[in-house]
Amino acid sequence: MEKFRNDIMKTIIEKYRRIWAVTHCISLMGWDSETYMPREGIRERSVANAEMSTLYQELLLKEEFVSLVERASGKDDLNPYEAGTIRVLKREITKMKKLPPELVYELEKTTSEAFQVWRVSREENKFDPFVPYLKKIIELNREMANKLGYDDNPYDALLDLSEEGLRTRDIKSIFDNLSPALKGILGRVDSEGYFSKRHELDGIKYDESAMKRVNDRVLELLHYPRNRARIDVSPHPFTVGFGLNDVRITTRYEGYDFKRSLFSTIHEFGHATYELQIDNELDMTPIGTGASLGIHEGQSRFWENVVGRSPPFAGLIKPLLDSELKITANYGAEELYRYFASVRPSLIRTEADEVTYNLHIALRFNLELKLINGELSVEELPQAWAETSESLLGVKPRNYADGVLQDVHWSHGSFGYFPTYTLGNVVASMIARKIANDIGKVQDLISENGIVEIKNYLKSNLHSFGATYAPKDLLQRVFGYTYNPSDLVHYLEKKYIEKSAY
Amino acid sequence: MEKFRNDIMKTIIEKYRRIWAVTHCISLMGWDSETYMPREGIRERSVANAEMSTLYQELLLKEEFVSLVERASGKDDLNPYEAGTIRVLKREITKMKKLPPELVYELEKTTSEAFQVWRVSREENKFDPFVPYLKKIIELNREMANKLGYDDNPYDALLDLSEEGLRTRDIKSIFDNLSPALKGILGRVDSEGYFSKRHELDGIKYDESAMKRVNDRVLELLHYPRNRARIDVSPHPFTVGFGLNDVRITTRYEGYDFKRSLFSTIHEFGHATYELQIDNELDMTPIGTGASLGIHEGQSRFWENVVGRSPPFAGLIKPLLDSELKITANYGAEELYRYFASVRPSLIRTEADEVTYNLHIALRFNLELKLINGELSVEELPQAWAETSESLLGVKPRNYADGVLQDVHWSHGSFGYFPTYTLGNVVASMIARKIANDIGKVQDLISENGIVEIKNYLKSNLHSFGATYAPKDLLQRVFGYTYNPSDLVHYLEKKYIEKSAY
Repeated sequence: MEKFRNDIMKTIIEKYRRIWAVTHCISLMGWDSETYMPREGIRERSVANAEMSTLYQELLLKEEFVSLVERASGKDDLNPYEAGTIRVLKREITKMKKLPPELVYELEKTTSEAFQVWRVSREENKFDPFVPYLKKIIELNREMANKLGYDDNPYDALLDLSEEGLRTRDIKSIFDNLSPALKGILGRVDSEGYFSKRHELDGIKYDESAMKRVNDRVLELLHYPRNRARIDVSPHPFTVGFGLNDVRITTRYEGYDFKRSLFSTIHEFGHATYELQIDNELDMTPIGTGASLGIHEGQSRFWENVVGRSPPFAGLIKPLLDSELKITANYGAEELYRYFASVRPSLIRTEADEVTYNLHIALRFNLELKLINGELSVEELPQAWAETSESLLGVKPRNYADGVLQDVHWSHGSFGYFPTYTLGNVVASMIARKIANDIGKVQDLISENGIVEIKNYLKSNLHSFGATYAPKDLLQRVFGYTYNPSDLVHYLEKKYIEKSAY
Repeated sequence: MEKFRNDIMKTIIEKYRRIWAVTHCISLMGWDSETYMPREGIRERSVANAEMSTLYQELLLKEEFVSLVERASGKDDLNPYEAGTIRVLKREITKMKKLPPELVYELEKTTSEAFQVWRVSREENKFDPFVPYLKKIIELNREMANKLGYDDNPYDALLDLSEEGLRTRDIKSIFDNLSPALKGILGRVDSEGYFSKRHELDGIKYDESAMKRVNDRVLELLHYPRNRARIDVSPHPFTVGFGLNDVRITTRYEGYDFKRSLFSTIHEFGHATYELQIDNELDMTPIGTGASLGIHEGQSRFWENVVGRSPPFAGLIKPLLDSELKITANYGAEELYRYFASVRPSLIRTEADEVTYNLHIALRFNLELKLINGELSVEELPQAWAETSESLLGVKPRNYADGVLQDVHWSHGSFGYFPTYTLGNVVASMIARKIANDIGKVQDLISENGIVEIKNYLKSNLHSFGATYAPKDLLQRVFGYTYNPSDLVHYLEKKYIEKSAY
């Protein structure tokens, strides 16, 4: 089937090719900067990047292109792919038009300084130097929200930037359901001790080149298509797609606790698989990408947590771990699984397990909402962080570095981004439930062939559409409902309390 | 000193930044395609590449930009950097304006098919299938020459594309001097047998990861600045600069005859050093690059042949070769040098030594000049190749693959490119002579410190100017004369006949 049949749509897709080419270059520069670029290359790279970003904006806002999009948007005979293309383009054009270049420039300037100040402040465990920057960033975010417009809450405008159609009330209702349930599960896991005991493998060193072979072999097991995909190394793992036939992930090697590297790899594999399984006819079009950050995170969390942190997966990869790493040889598959799926409240979000992770997000959502709405001042933030952390996780940071300064996001100017992590966990559990319903429990499917079955199922039911549908519409079509926190609670209860297949 | 002081020049440099950014992206895509891109990524990469190339042309030919360049070119108070910038831009604009897009498109279309046909023809050792393509390519090159314009000879226009200001008569006079002298040297080397005997190390296998360490350590010895430069792997080694602080080379690992990998690395190091030593104030400007292909090749050949294939360099790297490769341990430095500098007429240009290499180029120059001028038909080419090869090198191909089909260049549409290889060898010997004159014989300078001295000398006397001066002007300024084949003859005689320092 030809997806773009309308004449005006064909013209739009053709003209969009140049805009796409610019994003292709921007993505490639981003990937290269994080992986192979020699240090001093940043001097030229930052100039090239700024030029290409401006060029992207200029091409997108070209009068001829905008009016084509306007004209197409008035037509009532668009098929879903055509309508999706117009939806995505209009959203991007509107955003660019509403945000004045001076504001964007001011935010970029502030955050590039703020990022440096944040780094030093965290190292030196001082909050004061960061205060004026965070204030300024919040102010600029409020201004951005005002320019973008919103119905109820300025935070809505910021949320919508991260996840199309997401509102503060959605997130509130998710956490109202999730937070008490998670605290309950955490309490029971903790008192039982099966998952919460310290594990002998915690913190054990590994050989990096052996671990590289492990990751390669795990990706092979997951049928990662090397003719269309790569894995490289970077301090902060990420996935980037340069098109639907060139998707790249990175992973990290800290040298201890091999599960960190392993699950980073599987997490990014999940992101990559989404992009790789989008219908190739959508390649190089505005909808040839994931539907949203939250749905993307749903894919990565599904593979990392639902598939990866499961007893059968531990069993599946144990032989290769034993042969490459040696350090696992004395542990049975169940022991390995307990190491993968350990649950313990901690101060650091990025090290959190499945049960506590969303409590870290609840904490951040709670505070950033108040910051944007002026109900909390930056000066009061550390105290509020400590109190909320204690009430949600039962632990309280003793310094700024483990508390309010631990994440890079705010220094980057990102408000409204954190909640998409929880959406991801929710979506992952929705996928688990639907797969169980349609083709069998995920745990029972985990085998070399079963993995192909799962991938094919996700491809035809979810991935292939790309960004054809807005995130909530896509979920409604696929699951019959949108972000449903009960699925996550149910999945965690099955896994961590009942210890039964999900 | 501020190099761009004139107001109009400042505007040009500022506006050029975006054009530069596009070339930055095109270079990055090129590098990535040859090194890390997954195979199927070519589907999107070729589209992105075509879009960015068109964009480059559009930006360069924008009326506003062209008229700024025109206006600046009329000014008589430009300093050398400003004048150089205008020279380079006018040359590029004129070229783009003179070549009609249909002709460029036709050539691209023809050569992309021709390349495939050439590959298969070479594999199957058939010339006939390639004949119509080569005819068409020659025809299009003639058309290109007509559009570009020339005084004496259509081949001049093509030569000028490769090397600014180079004319057929220049190359003719170089080979009139060079060819008989090289044949004489070859005869003497051959009868003496010191350099021409087969060497026990010829064709010996090596371990790839050990060889990687060798190349890394050799680059360290040459003070290759890793904070601004990289080395990667590709089938055909090349150098690319993304700016003056991010220059990358590649090398190859065939698994036998380690000198092939070693000298590829040193060759590309020479190219990279040129770019890395251009004055940083010229970064991201039209003159922040090498002056020409020939002068670039002069740098690579200087490091590869004059420095690398020398007795003291063999001595300098022998310890690390011994410790990494083992296979060299039984050979003294002199034996190693004899392996590096062996001389034997062969059929294949890319495997040729210093003495015979330029005879391969003479052969190609001779034939392509006749092809362009209609004095030789494509059908007659194999016979002409065999005869000229016999007369120059004393060997004659027994099949097309080792003869007329061995090089990719013609299938790529490149006529007038081969001579720049010989210019490179000539320039390398001119550098050797000048260094001997100014700071001491290169051979005597080869040591860890001496290498820094050589690099610094090249930086201040040649590299730092970038493309400020046209190639012949640059040579005239630096050496007091232009491409001088006698320097090459003299250097080769010293090295291969007298066996004395040069």
